[in-house]
Amino acid sequence: MAKDEVMEGGGGEFAAKDYTDPPPAQLIDAAELGSWSLYRAVIAEFIATLLFLYITVATVIGYNHQTDLSASGPDAACGGVGVLGIAWAFGGMIFILVYCTAGISGGHINPAVTFGLFLARKVSLVRAVLYIVAQCLGAICGVGLVKAFQSAYYNRYNGGANILSPGYSKGTGLAAEIVGTFVLVYTVFSATDPKRNARDSHVPVLAPLPIGFAVFMVHLATIPITGTGINPARSLGPAVIFNNSKAWHNHWIFWVGPFVGAAIAAFYHQYILRAGAIKALGSFRSNA
Amino acid sequence: MAKDEVMEGGGGEFAAKDYTDPPPAQLIDAAELGSWSLYRAVIAEFIATLLFLYITVATVIGYNHQTDLSASGPDAACGGVGVLGIAWAFGGMIFILVYCTAGISGGHINPAVTFGLFLARKVSLVRAVLYIVAQCLGAICGVGLVKAFQSAYYNRYNGGANILSPGYSKGTGLAAEIVGTFVLVYTVFSATDPKRNARDSHVPVLAPLPIGFAVFMVHLATIPITGTGINPARSLGPAVIFNNSKAWHNHWIFWVGPFVGAAIAAFYHQYILRAGAIKALGSFRSNA
Amino acid sequence: MAKDEVMEGGGGEFAAKDYTDPPPAQLIDAAELGSWSLYRAVIAEFIATLLFLYITVATVIGYNHQTDLSASGPDAACGGVGVLGIAWAFGGMIFILVYCTAGISGGHINPAVTFGLFLARKVSLVRAVLYIVAQCLGAICGVGLVKAFQSAYYNRYNGGANILSPGYSKGTGLAAEIVGTFVLVYTVFSATDPKRNARDSHVPVLAPLPIGFAVFMVHLATIPITGTGINPARSLGPAVIFNNSKAWHNHWIFWVGPFVGAAIAAFYHQYILRAGAIKALGSFRSNA
Amino acid sequence: MAKDEVMEGGGGEFAAKDYTDPPPAQLIDAAELGSWSLYRAVIAEFIATLLFLYITVATVIGYNHQTDLSASGPDAACGGVGVLGIAWAFGGMIFILVYCTAGISGGHINPAVTFGLFLARKVSLVRAVLYIVAQCLGAICGVGLVKAFQSAYYNRYNGGANILSPGYSKGTGLAAEIVGTFVLVYTVFSATDPKRNARDSHVPVLAPLPIGFAVFMVHLATIPITGTGINPARSLGPAVIFNNSKAWHNHWIFWVGPFVGAAIAAFYHQYILRAGAIKALGSFRSNA
Repeated sequence: MAKDEVMEGGGGEFAAKDYTDPPPAQLIDAAELGSWSLYRAVIAEFIATLLFLYITVATVIGYNHQTDLSASGPDAACGGVGVLGIAWAFGGMIFILVYCTAGISGGHINPAVTFGLFLARKVSLVRAVLYIVAQCLGAICGVGLVKAFQSAYYNRYNGGANILSPGYSKGTGLAAEIVGTFVLVYTVFSATDPKRNARDSHVPVLAPLPIGFAVFMVHLATIPITGTGINPARSLGPAVIFNNSKAWHNHWIFWVGPFVGAAIAAFYHQYILRAGAIKALGSFRSNA
Repeated sequence: MAKDEVMEGGGGEFAAKDYTDPPPAQLIDAAELGSWSLYRAVIAEFIATLLFLYITVATVIGYNHQTDLSASGPDAACGGVGVLGIAWAFGGMIFILVYCTAGISGGHINPAVTFGLFLARKVSLVRAVLYIVAQCLGAICGVGLVKAFQSAYYNRYNGGANILSPGYSKGTGLAAEIVGTFVLVYTVFSATDPKRNARDSHVPVLAPLPIGFAVFMVHLATIPITGTGINPARSLGPAVIFNNSKAWHNHWIFWVGPFVGAAIAAFYHQYILRAGAIKALGSFRSNA
Repeated sequence: MAKDEVMEGGGGEFAAKDYTDPPPAQLIDAAELGSWSLYRAVIAEFIATLLFLYITVATVIGYNHQTDLSASGPDAACGGVGVLGIAWAFGGMIFILVYCTAGISGGHINPAVTFGLFLARKVSLVRAVLYIVAQCLGAICGVGLVKAFQSAYYNRYNGGANILSPGYSKGTGLAAEIVGTFVLVYTVFSATDPKRNARDSHVPVLAPLPIGFAVFMVHLATIPITGTGINPARSLGPAVIFNNSKAWHNHWIFWVGPFVGAAIAAFYHQYILRAGAIKALGSFRSNA
Repeated sequence: MAKDEVMEGGGGEFAAKDYTDPPPAQLIDAAELGSWSLYRAVIAEFIATLLFLYITVATVIGYNHQTDLSASGPDAACGGVGVLGIAWAFGGMIFILVYCTAGISGGHINPAVTFGLFLARKVSLVRAVLYIVAQCLGAICGVGLVKAFQSAYYNRYNGGANILSPGYSKGTGLAAEIVGTFVLVYTVFSATDPKRNARDSHVPVLAPLPIGFAVFMVHLATIPITGTGINPARSLGPAVIFNNSKAWHNHWIFWVGPFVGAAIAAFYHQYILRAGAIKALGSFRSNA
């Protein structure tokens, strides 16, 4: 802690800082538009979101199908992987997809994460818009695959759409999405903080694992309330493919909630947790 | 092992030690009180404990709600995430919150952990008191959120409070809390030992994961006995919000048990496992 | 990202590259045939696939056996580890076996993975053929052990064979195997990419864990459709030992699907995600 | 691979080796007997095995208790953490205890692991005997705690003892224990191989996690057959405390099976997988 103080309050001793914050991303970066790595990243986001929705919605449909089958007998209701298995499917897929795409696109796979990182000026506006479009198209294609494979069961089980459960108000659903997305985006910021990466060896190494676990945890807590969105692409995909009034009703909750939650997490990380860093940067500049 | 002997018994060869124990924290550190990093750490503990209680108590209430729903039919008792899902919620949240806050506040999120680290002189008295107050307030706010979201079900399912199960004596509950907290705080000490960090590459990297698993394991074992506290803030939050005589009855067990368990773990780590280090330090001093 | 551009587009500045792609493996490497390390690797693949099939098929048979036992009463269907436990058995075994054999044989344990890495020229033709033969023999021996231990139950529960579930077409089963294997082999390529290893500290360290999770995830999603193959050796072993027309019917799906999925993953990684690297190599050569 | 060949066959170029095998442990090391670190390690093994048995047997008893409670109604059999939760308790505890004690005692917590490492000459005979005694005493004390806490239920549910399930022969039980222990001890050898540690960054970092997963996996597969021992201390503790003829009947299986499995794993690792290293050492010596 003492070391921390010295470094942050010390003003001119730049050499003592063992990390550098990258400069804020430009809103529109013309050079970026001409680079292959941007388009490769967009493709990677598309494929990753497609696989995410394919695996998770297939798990949801398969679980309902098996529960249904076993419930036809007089004594069984435990077929399938259970609600716990569904929560694992969402969390586990985020773990492996962040692991696989982090080095290509940053591994967002979620418009709310992209929005939070854009607010913190970690990605340009152009990149953020392209990512969100790719994520939404990927989600639609992924759910389309599930519908093609599970045509007999897809519509019967609400198509994996996020629906506000009976007995909960719109305000509760919105608040649950806000807090849930806050947990996820706060974890993402913690895992990608250059200051912490430089000091704690576990931060960069484990990164994809706690991000996946954050998704797993939020699903455990809020599947009974909204089915758990915290990812507008995940909510949009089934709504488009299922295309039933039940799916579109209250759909705005799954965009407004995650975006508000991500914005609060960005604010919390940048202004509360990293305020000291900003101060230090200020005093360094005034000394220079 | 042989290398170990040489280093510990060798007396004057200080350079051979590849780690340094930080000096014991002062009881009251005036400089600390003037630093932003202390207040930032207190805020981080408050938010982390709030999120911990929000996710875990929501999982408990949602599980009971779903089990109830499915039990209304003649044949079903498998709704919700199960007791295993509840244990995952507690363990998994500790994993991600220790990961997120370790670099800011040390990632305690538990008055018993703060108490154990204070006894080992890793944190000052002032910091320990501020952390414990922040953790308790955070826990109350987190459970308050769950009550607001789940108003219809919160009171029906005992509000997630820690209650001694029928058929178990107070002594058993107290002893279960002591041993459970010992497992947790022993893991925390193992994960933050500077001597081991210097030699075993896995110790600092994995640290948040086994700490989370320790919480998961203790929940598997003692949910049937006390619902598993091992964290006085976790027990206080639901007791304050539920505020029912059932919740306050035997509440002392969830403060005395964890504090005694943490004290034994601190003693075991400092006097049994690290005794050699103390000896070495002694012989180094006598040679100098 | 900017750094990335410079490095890939920069032409002659070879020193800026912090990684080297190994040269493509020869189709037939005569020197390799004379080395003990090849035969040691083949033995390791045999043993690993044997253990993989032994543990996983024993879990499947034991689960069915226990469910059966408890279903004999009027009210129980939760004996055994559940479908979630079966998915863990497959994913967890791949995690530990990749961990144990990665340094000996590369840790394939799956003919589809070997085929994908052969297409990407990471292993020679000779090595690929020997591995696939060893994997198939290992799988047959592993299932043979289960049959010997569980003789009373093995045949009753379809011997752990991959069978297309009623209600799904051959096309659906094939497509599910293709996408599932794509998820697995895409994760394998991401985990072994020398470019990403050099830049992201988490890539080489975690490697076996997301590979195991990929297998876990695909099982959650497609157990209801095909029982989940994504590994021709895993499908062949039970078919040979069970040797029933039900097991051989549609068996081709579990070879064609995984090989097509692995080929698409190899194409996606080499031509889409690593295209930039190929370009950079080209411009470097033309400058030299 | 090619690099591997050169290094192993190269004879005199000792500097090319990036690892060193420690010399074989002496059978009786007098110096060791006078060092505090030996006794500290023995204490750590005692405490770790005590905690291992306490948590796992409490989970088993609690699971049976809850299943029993819910089965008293007409429709429920899913109380408690399930067989999957029991498997997690065993695997998860080994993960955290290996993590906590690896730097103190090597983290055996299992006489079969100690025996395997003794055969490979990694620990001295004196240390092996002291460890095994400490593990057995710790296991007895851990189960004693559970009996004290759960007096009403402990005897009713067979006290967590390993019992051969009806319908399985002694030969099957013995073979299941042999293969299961092979999986565990093979993983331990893979995780502690100095040759692999030097080359693959994931090997030393993840080490405790796959060892815990190996225990988890074997429990998924063989709980229906023997309840899964693969650890003679784990089997001895409940047998001593339960002290019923059912528990002692066939108890030899849980000593002979694990010791044979550990011996095969030691042979496989030392003579098959590391044979090249032995050869290289030989040629180096002949050149010198």
